[in-house]
Amino acid sequence: MGQPPISRYPVPRVEDLPDDIRARILEVQEKAGFVPNVFVTLAHRPDEFRAFFAYHDALMLRDSGLTKAEREMIVVATSGANDCLYCIVAHGAILRVYAKDPLVADQVAVNYRKADISPRQKAMLAFAMKVATHSVDVDDDDFATLRSHGFTNEDIWDIGGIAAFFALSNRMANLISMRPNPEFYLIGRVPKVAAG
Amino acid sequence: MGQPPISRYPVPRVEDLPDDIRARILEVQEKAGFVPNVFVTLAHRPDEFRAFFAYHDALMLRDSGLTKAEREMIVVATSGANDCLYCIVAHGAILRVYAKDPLVADQVAVNYRKADISPRQKAMLAFAMKVATHSVDVDDDDFATLRSHGFTNEDIWDIGGIAAFFALSNRMANLISMRPNPEFYLIGRVPKVAAG
Amino acid sequence: MGQPPISRYPVPRVEDLPDDIRARILEVQEKAGFVPNVFVTLAHRPDEFRAFFAYHDALMLRDSGLTKAEREMIVVATSGANDCLYCIVAHGAILRVYAKDPLVADQVAVNYRKADISPRQKAMLAFAMKVATHSVDVDDDDFATLRSHGFTNEDIWDIGGIAAFFALSNRMANLISMRPNPEFYLIGRVPKVAAG
Amino acid sequence: MGQPPISRYPVPRVEDLPDDIRARILEVQEKAGFVPNVFVTLAHRPDEFRAFFAYHDALMLRDSGLTKAEREMIVVATSGANDCLYCIVAHGAILRVYAKDPLVADQVAVNYRKADISPRQKAMLAFAMKVATHSVDVDDDDFATLRSHGFTNEDIWDIGGIAAFFALSNRMANLISMRPNPEFYLIGRVPKVAAG
Amino acid sequence: MGQPPISRYPVPRVEDLPDDIRARILEVQEKAGFVPNVFVTLAHRPDEFRAFFAYHDALMLRDSGLTKAEREMIVVATSGANDCLYCIVAHGAILRVYAKDPLVADQVAVNYRKADISPRQKAMLAFAMKVATHSVDVDDDDFATLRSHGFTNEDIWDIGGIAAFFALSNRMANLISMRPNPEFYLIGRVPKVAAG
Amino acid sequence: MGQPPISRYPVPRVEDLPDDIRARILEVQEKAGFVPNVFVTLAHRPDEFRAFFAYHDALMLRDSGLTKAEREMIVVATSGANDCLYCIVAHGAILRVYAKDPLVADQVAVNYRKADISPRQKAMLAFAMKVATHSVDVDDDDFATLRSHGFTNEDIWDIGGIAAFFALSNRMANLISMRPNPEFYLIGRVPKVAAG
Repeated sequence: MGQPPISRYPVPRVEDLPDDIRARILEVQEKAGFVPNVFVTLAHRPDEFRAFFAYHDALMLRDSGLTKAEREMIVVATSGANDCLYCIVAHGAILRVYAKDPLVADQVAVNYRKADISPRQKAMLAFAMKVATHSVDVDDDDFATLRSHGFTNEDIWDIGGIAAFFALSNRMANLISMRPNPEFYLIGRVPKVAAG
Repeated sequence: MGQPPISRYPVPRVEDLPDDIRARILEVQEKAGFVPNVFVTLAHRPDEFRAFFAYHDALMLRDSGLTKAEREMIVVATSGANDCLYCIVAHGAILRVYAKDPLVADQVAVNYRKADISPRQKAMLAFAMKVATHSVDVDDDDFATLRSHGFTNEDIWDIGGIAAFFALSNRMANLISMRPNPEFYLIGRVPKVAAG
Repeated sequence: MGQPPISRYPVPRVEDLPDDIRARILEVQEKAGFVPNVFVTLAHRPDEFRAFFAYHDALMLRDSGLTKAEREMIVVATSGANDCLYCIVAHGAILRVYAKDPLVADQVAVNYRKADISPRQKAMLAFAMKVATHSVDVDDDDFATLRSHGFTNEDIWDIGGIAAFFALSNRMANLISMRPNPEFYLIGRVPKVAAG
Repeated sequence: MGQPPISRYPVPRVEDLPDDIRARILEVQEKAGFVPNVFVTLAHRPDEFRAFFAYHDALMLRDSGLTKAEREMIVVATSGANDCLYCIVAHGAILRVYAKDPLVADQVAVNYRKADISPRQKAMLAFAMKVATHSVDVDDDDFATLRSHGFTNEDIWDIGGIAAFFALSNRMANLISMRPNPEFYLIGRVPKVAAG
Repeated sequence: MGQPPISRYPVPRVEDLPDDIRARILEVQEKAGFVPNVFVTLAHRPDEFRAFFAYHDALMLRDSGLTKAEREMIVVATSGANDCLYCIVAHGAILRVYAKDPLVADQVAVNYRKADISPRQKAMLAFAMKVATHSVDVDDDDFATLRSHGFTNEDIWDIGGIAAFFALSNRMANLISMRPNPEFYLIGRVPKVAAG
Repeated sequence: MGQPPISRYPVPRVEDLPDDIRARILEVQEKAGFVPNVFVTLAHRPDEFRAFFAYHDALMLRDSGLTKAEREMIVVATSGANDCLYCIVAHGAILRVYAKDPLVADQVAVNYRKADISPRQKAMLAFAMKVATHSVDVDDDDFATLRSHGFTNEDIWDIGGIAAFFALSNRMANLISMRPNPEFYLIGRVPKVAAG
């Protein structure tokens, strides 16, 4: 049936984009070997694009008590709760790479409680899911539980902040019907591919 | 019982903040007569603060087919669905001022279907609520319905984008237990106050 | 768009009502300065009107271990759970007056867990919400918890009874699309107004 | 394990009750052959008892476009939605008697859509269930649908009013853990018993 | 309106069925005095019929730490959660007979927590309901709780297995709109009938 | 942390199993190159094992208006709704192979409405999801909708029957904490592997 569109909205050509956005896209293309659709589809609105990725980077690249793999676990688990295909597939790929584990992304997307992760990581994801789905119930007991697993208050902000940011991201992806690049489905699944 | 804290996290003093953030805060204080707590509580993390307000402004200040009052209706209705006290109270105040209507904010926060707003605005809020609470179900029929009410595709992005952004905002407010300033509760309720 | 109707059903003129109902309405008008719409809209059915207010008075005016402000908290919190605009707005006003607190009604309507009320009052509202939304789960542990906060069994009947009565009231208001009087929105918000 | 109590609260002796309440109870005992537990358990609070049964009678005994069996169907269906054992069992018995149908009560309690009732009665119960479980969504379309089945606006008040009243009744029964009399389980099930 | 059909699908005549299925049906007819509709309606697909009853017998007839009445309690409680009229009515009858208790089936179908059963049986049903409605949350704590009530791991498999099998059965009954035989409604309710 | 167990229950050695079960397992091992864990974990109970696979085969191998890929779509979509990791991963692999499509399984597991499948297949999955999650609502309109997409009544039994059977299967997998074989995660994702 032909290639389905990657967004309900017009997708700008990379060469037509403002310099800073084009540079960011070329950088990720250089690194990944392709341009993830989130970049070109959100570039339809340059100001929102800039704020979106500034927010993303502030949370996902900062020094933190959470590893990069743990941050991606939060993305995948909460995107599973929100039924967001783009984020599950794209961040599932990133999670497999960071965790060097071909199975963990599918496990976390379906049911983190049975994933091959540590009790500390399960506590982290339980809290992230609460922020994602019924944040009104967050209370001091949640903070105490997380601190008993060794998380600092700043780590807890990171957990909740990532869950909150992807609440936005999942809704944008569903709004515009963002389609995952086919490449993501396989990344990190085959040891030789990852190594080669 | 003393004044309850406005955040679970440390609240920086305005004079200690980076210049750009301090300037923004002084500007809003100048305009509103007080500093809304969202500014000082989120300033605990300057990078996230900058991205948050850049995103906010990109959606709420842009030229749009939606009036400013309509944008605030989206904020209030979806914050009601998320049980976010800060956003209902603070943006309820802004909505009353923009709409010059002392009743509409409480109506929209509880049940937009019975609010004194137009059928077009009810269709707008129905879609915003869908993005806020079950965005996985957004489909082409929703776009057709909104276009039948005169919304363009760009207007629909605005509606969905605001609902998505406040999905983030509501979760951050609940995460840090952000407390509304007492001033917000009364703004826009008394005609003379609004006029004076 | 003109004044919207206050009910889906015919609203009787006060002078046409049976003596006892007219007397009650004139009494409340004398006290409040206006006739709350619940009186004239429910007067469409005199027998149900009489039973409704007899039940209301039996619960809300009796000697009780609950203060009048606490009883109104139960009304506002459970009406929030049922999305009943009339009861949130009208009883929110009464709550502000009884509690001499301009903020508590909005807090309790959105999320009683973050309201500026005592732990005892939070336990009271947690139970009221259980009766309002999933009474099938009420069990002996709930009674033990409430007694540990100093409530007697008769107090617990009061809490549950008020939640049950407003389950009826909220549904009637939604059935007939009862509209709150504009006066209620402001009552108890401005100290001077309350005092004057 | 001995006879379980019929209420969490003290149950008054009939001879100790106020005259009007005792008379009502003796009248129902005369008619039914036993005293349904709702009478003696609610008599713990005479004023609420009087208002409760005045409300009940105003709805259930008035001239109406609904038959008595139809009114009991509303009670049984909405009590099923609220998981109220007392009302399902006691009003199921009454429904079997009024409808002269030993099967309809169990059908309506579980799933009215597959009960052996008319399309008009299914529309009536669909609306009653909406009032019982999400009355905030009641709108003009519901009224139009019911009118297309021949219901007048006053009939619709009856439907919604009964659903609303038993929202109260179900919660009171669950609050006090009201136990159905064993007699109710069998009434109306055996043709000979009903006839004899 | 005539006798309603017992299935949305063609119902084979017993004499046209394969020998083994006909024999099974005649055996149950001999024992019960009538042919329960589940047999003739599912016989529309002989292979699925054979597997269905093989599975049923493997769970319901095996040696187990659960009595036959307890197994039927699981069926009735989980069928209540799934709103399956056929299974509530048919297995409610069987439960009354096995338990020699005319009241327990209606109690368990509506709210097992208030049924006249033992704490051990309530723990059993709490777990069965979890398997029936949100099995993803089953965890080691559930096993520990059940073992504290004296259940072995094999008993727990029985509980979960019965809940799982009737998840299938309830859905098939709702799919084909399977109608309970009128006989089931009365079985086990009248002591003399049971004895005679 | 070592290899996690594949079941909460003892897993029999293949050589200790009854002949018919051992033969079945060796057959699937021959075909797949490994023994899927569902076979050895369910073999803990031979009678239930036999009934389970007899039921499976009756539905999944019969002549049908549904292709084998379509039947696996039903398994994957409904297992997604039930959060069953084993079935999503194992049947996702089978679906990729049958559909010769490396992407469709992840799409269907998250949100079939946005999968690259035909409108007829989406109607099929919408009905399967209804049977899986709220079968009480299945009605004649559903049958009419499916027939308008070309499905026969027997096809509809297949759709509903598969959804019902995996309601059982998902619950058993969650009950015993059945773990997917690592091999499944990659099957059908790499064209060369599939071809080789």
